[in-house]
Amino acid sequence: MQIAQSPSAAIDVLGLGNAIVDVLAYAEDALVAELGLIKGAMTLVDEERVEFLYRRMGPAREVSGGSCANTMAALAALGGNPAFIGRVKADQLGQVFAHDIRAAGVAFRSRPAVDGPATARCLIFVTPDAQRTMQTYLGACVELGPEDVEEDLVAAAQITYLEGYLWDRPEAKAACRKATSIAHAHGRQIALTLSDPFCVGRWREEFRTLVEQEVDILFANEAEITALYEASTFDEALQQVRRHVRFAALTRGAKGSVVVRGDEVHVIDAAPVTRLVDTTGAGDLYAAGFLRGLGMGLDLAACGRLGSLCAARIIEQFGARAEQPLRPLLDQVR
Amino acid sequence: MQIAQSPSAAIDVLGLGNAIVDVLAYAEDALVAELGLIKGAMTLVDEERVEFLYRRMGPAREVSGGSCANTMAALAALGGNPAFIGRVKADQLGQVFAHDIRAAGVAFRSRPAVDGPATARCLIFVTPDAQRTMQTYLGACVELGPEDVEEDLVAAAQITYLEGYLWDRPEAKAACRKATSIAHAHGRQIALTLSDPFCVGRWREEFRTLVEQEVDILFANEAEITALYEASTFDEALQQVRRHVRFAALTRGAKGSVVVRGDEVHVIDAAPVTRLVDTTGAGDLYAAGFLRGLGMGLDLAACGRLGSLCAARIIEQFGARAEQPLRPLLDQVR
Repeated sequence: MQIAQSPSAAIDVLGLGNAIVDVLAYAEDALVAELGLIKGAMTLVDEERVEFLYRRMGPAREVSGGSCANTMAALAALGGNPAFIGRVKADQLGQVFAHDIRAAGVAFRSRPAVDGPATARCLIFVTPDAQRTMQTYLGACVELGPEDVEEDLVAAAQITYLEGYLWDRPEAKAACRKATSIAHAHGRQIALTLSDPFCVGRWREEFRTLVEQEVDILFANEAEITALYEASTFDEALQQVRRHVRFAALTRGAKGSVVVRGDEVHVIDAAPVTRLVDTTGAGDLYAAGFLRGLGMGLDLAACGRLGSLCAARIIEQFGARAEQPLRPLLDQVR
Repeated sequence: MQIAQSPSAAIDVLGLGNAIVDVLAYAEDALVAELGLIKGAMTLVDEERVEFLYRRMGPAREVSGGSCANTMAALAALGGNPAFIGRVKADQLGQVFAHDIRAAGVAFRSRPAVDGPATARCLIFVTPDAQRTMQTYLGACVELGPEDVEEDLVAAAQITYLEGYLWDRPEAKAACRKATSIAHAHGRQIALTLSDPFCVGRWREEFRTLVEQEVDILFANEAEITALYEASTFDEALQQVRRHVRFAALTRGAKGSVVVRGDEVHVIDAAPVTRLVDTTGAGDLYAAGFLRGLGMGLDLAACGRLGSLCAARIIEQFGARAEQPLRPLLDQVR
C-alpha cells in the first residue's frame, strides 16, 4: 500500500504472476476421469472448454488464487511487505481479485483491462484424496506484458518472484525477462517457481538456461525438478541441482523438503497435518514461508521449517488463501 | 431440472427469494462497531455503501447465498426435489449464482436480467463469536415481480416457500401474493420464513395478517417471533402463535426449537456442534431439514430433529451452502 505513495519504499518480494480467481468444488474421481482431466496437473483451456467444464462442476465457491498471488498474500499475512503485478479485467471477478489481494495487505497497482477477455478463472476439482486438478482459462492474464513491469517497483524489491506459468505466453515471458534485467541491474535477486511439471516439459531448455544463468533462488516440487532434469529419482535431480543451481528449495509433499545453497544442504521434515482437506496452494504457501524466513534473516533450515508449517496449514482448508492467521507460525521457528 | 421439460412434474418445495451471492470474511468486533453495523442483523444498503463497506472488508470468498435459495439447495442435498424463482443479472456473479443452484440440483429457470443493476451481493462480516452481520445490496433482485411467478411451477409444488425479505420491495411482495393465490387455488400450501427481526419490524401488521390468513407453515427464530408479537419473552410469543398460527417451527439457537401444530407441541433440542465457525445459514438449513422431513412423511418431532441436525452441520463451516453431504443426516432421524 505504501508503494503507491512512495515508489522507493522497500518491498520484500515483488511477485509477477497470473491474476486468477479460483472456482473450487469437490469432485468424485469418476468425474475427473470422465472429463478426461489430467489429475493433479494444471491444464490451460479455452473459453468454450472452461464453460463446458463449469457446467459439469458441482456447487462451487470462488476464492482469489493464482500461484504467485497466493504466495504474496501469505507473505503479507506473515508480516512481510510484498507487491504483485498481474492483469485482471474490469469485471466482477477482477474486482474480487483486486479486493482480496489488497485486503490481504499486498501492494497491487496493475490497472484492470477495460476490454478483451474476462478475468482469468481456474476451475479446481478437489477429489476425495484432497488432490486438486486445475483447468485454467487465462482470460485477461494474456494482457500482461513488459509494459506492466515498472522499473521503480522492481528496483525497490529485494526479490522479484516469477511464476513458471508465465512462460506459456510470449508477452508474459518478455515481462519476466524485463524484470530480471532490472532486478539484476539494481543488485536485486530473482526467484522462480517452476509451477507445474507439464509447464516444465513445455519449456525445459529455456528453464534450464534460466535457472543456471539468471535465477538466484529456485522453488520446485519433486515432479517439477525431476521433469526439469528428466531424472528418474529425486536424488538424481538433486545432484543436477547441486551442479547447476545456486540456491534451491525443493518440496516433496509428505516427505518434506530439501534446501540447497552451495555446500549447504538441509533435509526438512513436513509439518504435521491435522486434517488433510485440499492440497491447493501447498507449494505457494511453502514459498511464502521460506521467503518470509529469508526476509527475517532466519537460517536456511528455519526458512524451510517455516515453509513447511505454512504448507501444512493451507492444506487443512479449502483453497489457497489462508482463512486462519499465519503469524502464530512465526513463533514456532524463532 | 426435470421441470424445464415437464411443467407438471412434482416439486416438493418451490422457493421464492432474493438471488444473492454472499461475500464472506472474518472481521473483528472493532471493525463492525467502527462501521456502525447492527451486529447479527441484515441491513439493506445501496450501491455506494456496499462498495464502501467492501473496501473495508478483509480478504473474502464468494459463495452463493440468499436465505430461501440456501434452503432449496439444502433440500436438494437431502434428496428433495426443489425449485427456485429469483432474479440475477447476466453478469459473472449471476452466472455463479445460477451455476451453483443448478449444480446443487435445484430447478432454476428464471432468466437473468440483461440490463439494470448488478447481481445482488451480501457482505457477511463473521466475528470471532461466529455471529454474522449482513449488509445486502439487492441489485438485480429488484427485478423480481409477479411476471416471474409461473402458474405451472406453483401448481406443481406441494409447498411454495416465501422469504420475508421479499416484503421490502412492492414488486416482490406482489409476486408473493400472486404465488399465494395460485398455490391455494390448486390446493397447495404456503410456507413463510420471517427472515429477520428488523424486517418483521418494518412489516409487522402485514405479516400478522398474512400469517393468520394465508400461511400454512411459519418459520421464525426467537428474535423474529417476539418482534412479530412485540412479546417480551419467547413463551409470550409462543402463546400468541398457538392462538393465531396453524403450524409453526420456531428456532432458538442453542436452546433448540419448538414446533406447534394445532394442539401438538414439540420441544426439540439443538443438535450437538463440534466446532462453531459461522452461524450464517442456521435458520435456512433448519427450514430445509424440516421441510424435507415433511416431504418424507416423518412425524413433526422427527422433522424438527432433522432441521436441528442440518442447522448444526452448517454452523460448523463457513457460508450457508453445505460443503459436506447432508444425506447421512437422514439416517439419524429414520
